[in-house]
Parts: sequence; C-alpha cells; structure tokens
Amino acid sequence: MQYDGTGFHGWARQPAVRTVQEELERGLSTVLRRDVDLTVAGRTDAGVHATGQVAHCDVPGELWAEQAPKLVRRLRGVLPPDVAVRSVTEAHPDFDARFAALARHYAYRLTDDPAGPSPLRRTDTVAWPRRLDATAMDLAAGLLPGEHDFAAYCKRREGATTIRTLLRLEVSRTEDEPGVEVVRIDASADAFCHSMVRSLVGGLIAVGEGRRPLDWPASLLERAERASEVPVAPAHGLTLLAVDYPPDAALAARTGVTRARRDG
Amino acid sequence: MQYDGTGFHGWARQPAVRTVQEELERGLSTVLRRDVDLTVAGRTDAGVHATGQVAHCDVPGELWAEQAPKLVRRLRGVLPPDVAVRSVTEAHPDFDARFAALARHYAYRLTDDPAGPSPLRRTDTVAWPRRLDATAMDLAAGLLPGEHDFAAYCKRREGATTIRTLLRLEVSRTEDEPGVEVVRIDASADAFCHSMVRSLVGGLIAVGEGRRPLDWPASLLERAERASEVPVAPAHGLTLLAVDYPPDAALAARTGVTRARRDG
Repeated sequence: MQYDGTGFHGWARQPAVRTVQEELERGLSTVLRRDVDLTVAGRTDAGVHATGQVAHCDVPGELWAEQAPKLVRRLRGVLPPDVAVRSVTEAHPDFDARFAALARHYAYRLTDDPAGPSPLRRTDTVAWPRRLDATAMDLAAGLLPGEHDFAAYCKRREGATTIRTLLRLEVSRTEDEPGVEVVRIDASADAFCHSMVRSLVGGLIAVGEGRRPLDWPASLLERAERASEVPVAPAHGLTLLAVDYPPDAALAARTGVTRARRDG
Repeated sequence: MQYDGTGFHGWARQPAVRTVQEELERGLSTVLRRDVDLTVAGRTDAGVHATGQVAHCDVPGELWAEQAPKLVRRLRGVLPPDVAVRSVTEAHPDFDARFAALARHYAYRLTDDPAGPSPLRRTDTVAWPRRLDATAMDLAAGLLPGEHDFAAYCKRREGATTIRTLLRLEVSRTEDEPGVEVVRIDASADAFCHSMVRSLVGGLIAVGEGRRPLDWPASLLERAERASEVPVAPAHGLTLLAVDYPPDAALAARTGVTRARRDG
C-alpha cells in the first residue's frame, strides 16, 4: 500500500481525525461488504509517507475467491487519491503483517539547496536551511548498525524494550532531478521504536552541520533513556519503502516464536 | 525555474487568477525593489508543471552585481513552495529566453496500473483507466519526428505558422518506483504550438488503446487544420524538463535571424 502522509494524522485510527487505517478499512468494508480490521507492518506517524506499506486482514475464503481478481481496481474506485492499494494476495494462515516482518526499510529525504526542494517533490523532501556534510553524516551513520539498546532514540513507553537490530544506516548526496541535490538517509532495522528513524536523522544532521563530532550519535547508545538533545527530524521527509517477510515455509515456526517473545 | 502547476492557471499573467509569471515577477520585484518583466521559454498551460523552465529579465548592472550572490536564497524566502528558482546567471546581451531557445524538452507521465499512480506522484501522473500498448505507441511516435506542418495538433491561431521541427517523440514503459508502471512520453521540438504535446499524447493514446492503427497519428500531418478527433490529454501529466540554448558566441547572429523570421 502507498500513501501521501500529508493529509493524515498517521496510520493508527483515532477519533475525530483522518487516518490511513480508517480510510483503508472503510474502503475495504465498502468493497467487501463486511467489517475489516487491518494489522499493519509499520504504524507510521502523522505526516510520514509510504510507498511499500503492508497490512493483513481476515477474509472468508469464498468472499476472497470472488473478490480477489477485481479487488485492486474496485478499491481504486472507492479510495481517495492519497491512498493506493497496489496489490492484494492470499497469505499463509500464520502470516502476520506486524509480527512476521523481518525488516522495515525507510528513506528520509532533505535538501540543503538554497533554492529548496523541487516543488513537485516538496511533499516528501524537507528543506534544510544550512549546508550539510553528507560524507561526515555517512561516517557517523556507519557506527550505528548492529543490535543495541536504542533508548536514546526512542520515545519512552512503559515496559517496552528499546533493543533493536539496525541493519543499515547510510547517508548519500544524490541528484534525483538535474540540479536538485538531495541528502538521502536509508535506514533498515528488524523493527523501529516510535520516532526512532527521525531521531537518528536528527542526530546525523547535528553531525552534518558540524555541531557534533562523528562519534556522537553512536556514543548515545550508552544512554538508558531518551536523549533530549537529539532533535526529531520533520515527519514529511520520511517514507516507508518496503517490509521484508520470510518465505511461507518458514512462517509457521517463526511467527510462533516471535509472538511468544514479544508478548511474554 | 521549477513549479508544481496544480495551483496555477498556467504561466501567463492574467487578471484575477494565480499564475506562475505573476508569482515570480512579484518575488523578483520584492527582492530587487523594482518592477520586473519576465520573458519565458515555454508559456505552459494551466496545470502543466516545470522542472527546467527558463526566463530572462533586464536588471541594471550595479543591482545585479550586488544581488546575484544571494538572489536564489532570497527568492526562496519570498516565493511560495510551489515555485522555485534554482539558479540565476548573467546572460549574453543578445540572449532571449523565448527566441534564442533551440529546443524544448517535455515529458508526459500516465499510468494504466489498476491501482492508479503512486499517491506521492499523483500530481504529475495521469491515471489512465484502460490498458495501453506502449510498444505500439512508440512505433506510432517514431513516424512523427521531422519538420512538418503540425496543424492537426495545434489550436488554431490567426496567421501563426504551425510548422515545427519535432526532434524526438518516444514512448517507454518504466517503473519509477518498485511495482508502479508508468507510460512516459518524451517530446522535444524546436518549439511547440499551443496544446501540441498534449494533442500528440492524445493521438498516441488512441493507438495504445488499439482504437487507431499505428500510422494514424502520422497520417494526420496531411491535415491543414486542427483534427477534432484527436483528444487533448490532461494537463497535469505534462512537465517542461529543459530548454536548450546556443553558446553565447552563436547568440548574436542567431537571435537576429530568428526574430526576423518569426516576426515577419
């Protein structure tokens, strides 16, 4: 699934505000003529976009057989233009969009070009007012991957672990249109805690501006709680690109183990 | 210069509606503290975007010397986010953004994916409800380049020539994001008459849907006037990518010749 996060108060259904979950559940309920509850891989915050979000729901076999071939086209007819369901597929009975996910891949885009972002990409590209040293940012980023307690980069939640395996954190200066330089941060992990990607980006920006040394972001991994000096980068630069899952054959065993570990 | 055409009634200043020319002239006038008149390479229609538009204006030498180094940054401070001036440069005295241009390059984007365009690219990508044969479209497009009377593809204007040199017309099916197929039409010419790119696209779509034979778009070049059976494709799929100019050394001679030919 894909969405432009601009007009949404994030993924998770909340009273009185527009959310991606609400739009998608309403669209699916309209087409399938029954209530639908979605479980999602990444509960994105307000303003965050997705080009490769994944969710699952339970649909009776007969209804699925009847609706599946035309589901994408019918959803397109009922969904607003800022959400799209690109494909639907029958999953293994033990598939769970959240707990079976092996990795989440995000990209963050910002530009330090004095002219700002390309107007056609301003929705998902943050205008940064000061010059950034992307090479320094990438060197700092390279010290972070691995299994660590990311408490310094997480919003505190009672009892929840902040130990994560960061699989990739890379910074590159790219030109996605002639003449428009974008600093892109690619972040992958088994899972991210709340505001973690944007906090990592905030820490790297401090290095890119020369305000902090290269080893500062990694040095915060020693902290047992949220580091208040790490700014959270603006939401609209962040996009969920993809979610990885194990092959069906590996699902049954793995989801059982994961559920037990997370719930217990 | 770049703009998202969604919120504009085209380039050309008109009373009572928002135009790109008006925003840019107002921004430049604010920063330079004097009236500014812009001459533009491509007078784009309402809804059409640009990532490489070019315009010129006259600025006194002293003012230029003082303002040029900070002009892009200061314009960014006064322009709305749907317009950006990426760079400014002093031009040869004989430079004219309109009459010195050797070629204009446009791209048109549409998708026949049942799920529609990626929400983050819906601004510049048209959702097409029927499947398109991009290979057939490209074969039809290949019959059109050259110097021809494009009257069939032009809105009639009294006394104006509709002879143009079409330098490139190519259709390709691309994936600009994993899983999202876009049919892209690249069109370059010395100049385009009004609605010409969108009419060419409309003709190619008729081929892509199988409603017309491969040689139909080229066969219309025999017409002496606008072919009413050629639909004009929606504006928001079209983006002006770039404008080519001769080197300074060649400018003085060439602009004189071009002006004489067009005006006389």
